[in-house]
Amino acid sequence: MFRIKLTIEFDGADFCGWQIQDGVRTVQQEIESALERQLGAPVRIHSSGRTDSGVHARGMVAHLDSPRDLPSKAYRDGLNRLLPHDVAILSAESVNDDFHARYSSTGKWYRYSIWNHPVRSPLQDRRVWHLKGQLDLESMRQAAALLVGTHDFAAFRAASCEAKTTVREIFDLDLTRQDRLLQIDIRGSGFLQNMVRIIAGTLVEVGQEKRSLDNVSELLVNGDRNAAGVTAPGAGLCLMEVCYR
Amino acid sequence: MFRIKLTIEFDGADFCGWQIQDGVRTVQQEIESALERQLGAPVRIHSSGRTDSGVHARGMVAHLDSPRDLPSKAYRDGLNRLLPHDVAILSAESVNDDFHARYSSTGKWYRYSIWNHPVRSPLQDRRVWHLKGQLDLESMRQAAALLVGTHDFAAFRAASCEAKTTVREIFDLDLTRQDRLLQIDIRGSGFLQNMVRIIAGTLVEVGQEKRSLDNVSELLVNGDRNAAGVTAPGAGLCLMEVCYR
Repeated sequence: MFRIKLTIEFDGADFCGWQIQDGVRTVQQEIESALERQLGAPVRIHSSGRTDSGVHARGMVAHLDSPRDLPSKAYRDGLNRLLPHDVAILSAESVNDDFHARYSSTGKWYRYSIWNHPVRSPLQDRRVWHLKGQLDLESMRQAAALLVGTHDFAAFRAASCEAKTTVREIFDLDLTRQDRLLQIDIRGSGFLQNMVRIIAGTLVEVGQEKRSLDNVSELLVNGDRNAAGVTAPGAGLCLMEVCYR
Repeated sequence: MFRIKLTIEFDGADFCGWQIQDGVRTVQQEIESALERQLGAPVRIHSSGRTDSGVHARGMVAHLDSPRDLPSKAYRDGLNRLLPHDVAILSAESVNDDFHARYSSTGKWYRYSIWNHPVRSPLQDRRVWHLKGQLDLESMRQAAALLVGTHDFAAFRAASCEAKTTVREIFDLDLTRQDRLLQIDIRGSGFLQNMVRIIAGTLVEVGQEKRSLDNVSELLVNGDRNAAGVTAPGAGLCLMEVCYR
């Protein structure tokens, strides 16, 4: 068997997320179907993690064990010819057998995008969360600074999250605004289910002056999901990069 | 009657262009349907021009004569509630009766976007022309400089173009490259049918070293459409702005 690492971009708007599920269109299913056509045998791929419905990726990573010894470029070009317009293999590399897309990962970079203007943007629509009212960027930055570091993020995970531990490290949490587009860039060791979207929702509530900085600090202590902000829509989220040593 | 100027953004991917046609989805039809629901009577809108299937706009302009004396903001907010996700009214203004979206226009700005990389980008797919091979940007800029000014653009129009005169003025033609994205910004007094897309196709052939600068100069003299470049795909084109005095 030959282990191959794939780096994948997809537009999540028309996908029910990454993971294979019966009766719905998923990114994993599209790639496994293309691989089966290319290699002539069913092949399972293992990703760095799942993504929710509507969430995008510029740098999802997955690995597979191929029964055939092909040059790695043949995976990129061959699969791209077979894949639909909204998913593509950016690169394919031959890796050692001890490489694992999930367990070898040392961190991830997510970007959450907000269109902050009285009018929604048709050209941005499926890539952003549209918010009409004013956002106080300075307060949002102060709240973001409270979340950086190693904390118990129990308040920032979906009710259905099955992770055994809830302590994670956020390396950086940067907010940048270019005209109407506000981007939240989060880099961290790992993320709980919906963690980035709940952080985005919580920061927005700070920006809307609905939530204080003290309250954000308390969330890291009391771990109460019901006290944290809304889960921001999946459309605004993009997995930018998965990091490996 | 009350004349209103609308500035419109749309994602053209799922539209058969601007102009109303039986049996297909067009931007004009969506806006007129929304206006009829808002105003309770059929209202015709008059645009600065048509756009082809797949072409986008960040600043299309149209005017209408409304039977009702509403605050202009009511058109923007009311129509945006009725319009589908891929079209929005960016602004609505009350204007004098002598304003005409087409005849009052003094110029337009178009942007043509090219994704220049061996792999297509799912997140850019519907907004760009994907070209894999290397493009010589410096040659393309030299060819662009030849087109700036007042020329006979007969070689740069669709066979079906019905314009009576083919002399137009290009004010500026700028090429910028940011990593994999190449953008061609064209500002001019007016454009023939497919003129921007044929210019983009011709410049690309120069960048691919399939066409010389002398050949581009000749096109402005001989007016031979068959000698000019391919019509670049509609998806890469966006009407950025329509200018008025």
